[in-house]
Amino acid sequence: MLKIIKIGGGIIDNPQELTQFLNAFSKIEGPKVLVHGGGKGASKMLQQLGIEPKMVDGRRITDQPTLDVVTGLYAGNLNKSIVANLQEFGTNAVGLSGADGNVIKGNKRPVKTIDYGFVGDITLDGINVDFLQLLIDNGYTPVLCAITHDGNSQLLNTNADTIASTVAEALAVKNEVQLNFCFDKIGVLRDVNDDSTLIPVINKELYQELKAEGVIFEGMIPKLDNAFRVIDNGVKEVTLVHANNINGDIKTILC
Amino acid sequence: MLKIIKIGGGIIDNPQELTQFLNAFSKIEGPKVLVHGGGKGASKMLQQLGIEPKMVDGRRITDQPTLDVVTGLYAGNLNKSIVANLQEFGTNAVGLSGADGNVIKGNKRPVKTIDYGFVGDITLDGINVDFLQLLIDNGYTPVLCAITHDGNSQLLNTNADTIASTVAEALAVKNEVQLNFCFDKIGVLRDVNDDSTLIPVINKELYQELKAEGVIFEGMIPKLDNAFRVIDNGVKEVTLVHANNINGDIKTILC
Repeated sequence: MLKIIKIGGGIIDNPQELTQFLNAFSKIEGPKVLVHGGGKGASKMLQQLGIEPKMVDGRRITDQPTLDVVTGLYAGNLNKSIVANLQEFGTNAVGLSGADGNVIKGNKRPVKTIDYGFVGDITLDGINVDFLQLLIDNGYTPVLCAITHDGNSQLLNTNADTIASTVAEALAVKNEVQLNFCFDKIGVLRDVNDDSTLIPVINKELYQELKAEGVIFEGMIPKLDNAFRVIDNGVKEVTLVHANNINGDIKTILC
Repeated sequence: MLKIIKIGGGIIDNPQELTQFLNAFSKIEGPKVLVHGGGKGASKMLQQLGIEPKMVDGRRITDQPTLDVVTGLYAGNLNKSIVANLQEFGTNAVGLSGADGNVIKGNKRPVKTIDYGFVGDITLDGINVDFLQLLIDNGYTPVLCAITHDGNSQLLNTNADTIASTVAEALAVKNEVQLNFCFDKIGVLRDVNDDSTLIPVINKELYQELKAEGVIFEGMIPKLDNAFRVIDNGVKEVTLVHANNINGDIKTILC
């Protein structure tokens, strides 16, 4: 089973937790891919450089200075720090932006009501599966940051969840793939404040019931909709798991 | 013939020249590797962030804030921008720091009279030839920045000339290798102010004569000493060439 693991915000901003996670990640047997988001470093750096964040309707716009900062941080500092950590822990990691090996070609989001700037949307046919497979088959562990490119020299800021899902779908054509989203909960909970209400397994029928009951609501709906779409497209299973428990049994398995 | 091409300072700081160079580089037939230095962006960024450059005896010390800046710029902004450009020009480039695929493991320079900080020295046995060969044999073009790692999670700032030379030597074991240093002259000149005095070919005997005559002096001596050492270690030929003439005949060939 090829495991694709996505880590995001919180853990990225906590060096100690990140190191613990990477140590645990390095212990996962078999082929694996890591996809990481950015954390809050970009906002801090933009502030230090005196660059005013551009927001429209509460969403950040990736203008040129912002793109420069996120490229340096995500593809440079963060990605290389993660890779160097994994090397210490014995995982032969290879850090990649979407431009490297043309591994993820995206398209600048078209301007409708909002111009998001240099934000990239990606689809299945933008993934260079051959390159990922070459690395994986030779014992290397791809570590993907949330920067893609458009094939015309333009780098693009891309959602890391989308990268993880799309890469999982692309690799599922030739591999049995498990996609793991690490987040700050132990899984899907009936009561978000009570870990004992973890729902260990959710299939499509149960998902519909849970939505109807209002147990799953708001931000979890797009996350789970996306997960079931990925499963429809060939990924064996998707898990939601706490980043500090990547090798444990406490998680929600979607299948 | 596997071509390893090193570009440095001046061209990195000139976006138009850099793009022209990358276009020419992409036209080189056959397997190739690009090694790039950093340019002046790091000094500018350090200044913007209000970080005082630490110098000892006129040499920059890579303290932690400096390392963070050069890692973001060299492995992030610069490397990914170069890779995205090469992708546009049809070269399937893969940008790498030394940590990626454990491709260059170095050692923090020991403190003698000066503590250079996070500066890495490298040797032949620190090069992961298998990884470079895997990429090259599958049609990918490694693009190496001047950041290495020590295997214990520490990233290190490393001289790009040294990376180019050491990688050339390591790859020369299984490949016929030509190492090309791009710089701001058309080659070795008898009179530095007169391009018509280009010396097209220098072998070891001529080199000794030119040194004795004082034609080659100061900064060129370590550069050429290094080139002939690389040739002694199996590299077929080393050229000194202007970055705007990578595919032309005007150059100095050392052999």
